[in-house]
Amino acid sequence: MKYAIGIDIGGTITKIGLVSKDGNCIKKTSFRTKEFKSFSNYVEKLNSSIEQISDNKEIAGIGIGAPNASKNGTIETPANLKWKGQLNLIKKLKQKIKNNIFLTNDANCAAVGEMMYGNAISLNDFIVITLGTGLGSGIVSNGLLVEGKDGFAAELGHFSINKMGRYTGLGTKGGLEAYVSATGIKRTIMYMLSKYMEDSIFRSISFDNLHGEDITKAAENNDFIALKTFQYTGKILGKALANFVSFSQPEAIILTGGLVHSGKWILEPTIKSFEKNLLAFYEKKVKILTSGLEDKDSAILGSAALVWKNI
Amino acid sequence: MKYAIGIDIGGTITKIGLVSKDGNCIKKTSFRTKEFKSFSNYVEKLNSSIEQISDNKEIAGIGIGAPNASKNGTIETPANLKWKGQLNLIKKLKQKIKNNIFLTNDANCAAVGEMMYGNAISLNDFIVITLGTGLGSGIVSNGLLVEGKDGFAAELGHFSINKMGRYTGLGTKGGLEAYVSATGIKRTIMYMLSKYMEDSIFRSISFDNLHGEDITKAAENNDFIALKTFQYTGKILGKALANFVSFSQPEAIILTGGLVHSGKWILEPTIKSFEKNLLAFYEKKVKILTSGLEDKDSAILGSAALVWKNI
Repeated sequence: MKYAIGIDIGGTITKIGLVSKDGNCIKKTSFRTKEFKSFSNYVEKLNSSIEQISDNKEIAGIGIGAPNASKNGTIETPANLKWKGQLNLIKKLKQKIKNNIFLTNDANCAAVGEMMYGNAISLNDFIVITLGTGLGSGIVSNGLLVEGKDGFAAELGHFSINKMGRYTGLGTKGGLEAYVSATGIKRTIMYMLSKYMEDSIFRSISFDNLHGEDITKAAENNDFIALKTFQYTGKILGKALANFVSFSQPEAIILTGGLVHSGKWILEPTIKSFEKNLLAFYEKKVKILTSGLEDKDSAILGSAALVWKNI
Repeated sequence: MKYAIGIDIGGTITKIGLVSKDGNCIKKTSFRTKEFKSFSNYVEKLNSSIEQISDNKEIAGIGIGAPNASKNGTIETPANLKWKGQLNLIKKLKQKIKNNIFLTNDANCAAVGEMMYGNAISLNDFIVITLGTGLGSGIVSNGLLVEGKDGFAAELGHFSINKMGRYTGLGTKGGLEAYVSATGIKRTIMYMLSKYMEDSIFRSISFDNLHGEDITKAAENNDFIALKTFQYTGKILGKALANFVSFSQPEAIILTGGLVHSGKWILEPTIKSFEKNLLAFYEKKVKILTSGLEDKDSAILGSAALVWKNI
């Protein structure tokens, strides 16, 4: 029996897992990405972790999800990794590892994971939106990832929603992720505190001490600011999703990531706004779903799925 | 030598051509779409025209471009055709014609035409925007048309640009084609006449008597309203195109259709706005081109190309 190795390179943690073709992560490990000052040292650590986790099993290949991964095996100036410039990840790994290595960005991995193990198993046309610290996306059309010329397609976090207020990390104005993401929703709490004078638990919590779970809990307690914040966020997300449909007419849009843990508080206003803004001839043709991989090792599974889809 | 038959079903005219694989339209004919009260009579006329133009040549297949064409061989409630409901075009044609028949929407045909004969010959990732009476689009990713679940992807004329002012024909507010199309630019002339008090040739021309060529000519004569109109239109188009890049990262965006005949008047403000709104990491990665099929039988060629791409 062959296995795939799935690797998720995050700004804080790098996760590595050994995954069977039917999607069981039978062994995993992780280490802190930030500990490595030089990229070369980081790759050495990756190499030794891969060797250790392989455990003399037959390995079909290695799949890697990373921010700003290009089609050419490089990671290009990722905002949330400390190493700068064009990082030649695959070339460096190939110096030691004689096996298939596949690299794409983390949200694309999430899409491939849904296609193999999640809620997109029979779908050829769908979009995954990852709502984490930022907003990522993976688009599948004709059963293939829409990667674009260099691998930088599906950057919908930077999709301009024409609001002039907020800057994203990249200095663009009005990018969707400035509104719809863990960070975006915290910014909206601040905005609502500026706009309204109602009592709220958030009047005594600083931006830095504010966490997503607090907002959900406050909504459950009928906190005015929390309720306004979810409505505002869902309204923007639903409208953007309706716009995406005119691009690729997906059969489903799958939402995943921390913000989705807020459940109905985020989903209900999103779906309401989506349906309101959707063109009539798409009506009832596009489902809004949540991930089929929640509470599993979704990032590792997605990266491992990249191997099975490509070999 | 085999030939393909290319058919372009337009609201006013239906064009039919016999096309060699290297893209020569060696024979063509056309008739008025609007003359046929029943869809059955129209299909009869199509059948006889196909037979007549085939001329006993060996025909590899028939490619058809039509508004609102679905993946299932139907045309669904097209706004600019007089027959309503779900028109089962391929099924009806197949009753008489025992050959390959391929159907997709007209802007998708334009994209396939550029891929075989125009300015996208070596490209796997590009977008075609057709600027006619409305705004159509064809998106190619991984060398394949992005058609979506039912064939209704790439409806970028209805892409919401968040301006609340104008309605499109479908009753949606702020759709791109309400601003960027032959009709849209006429509406902008009216808007500029309302906004400014400067002299202009357009103060004496009614909406119905206004034609695209007049606006270009007026711009050449330094007409204030014409210049403002092109700037306004290009600004909106360039911004929308920059947003499309974050979706599919095309290597090129190809503009085609009547509005492109305005040349630099529309292209310069469009490119300026595109570059201004493009994310930094896409810089110099996306070309704005005009069609490689201008002044040829582009609609017929595009439909015929559908045959060669699919058989």
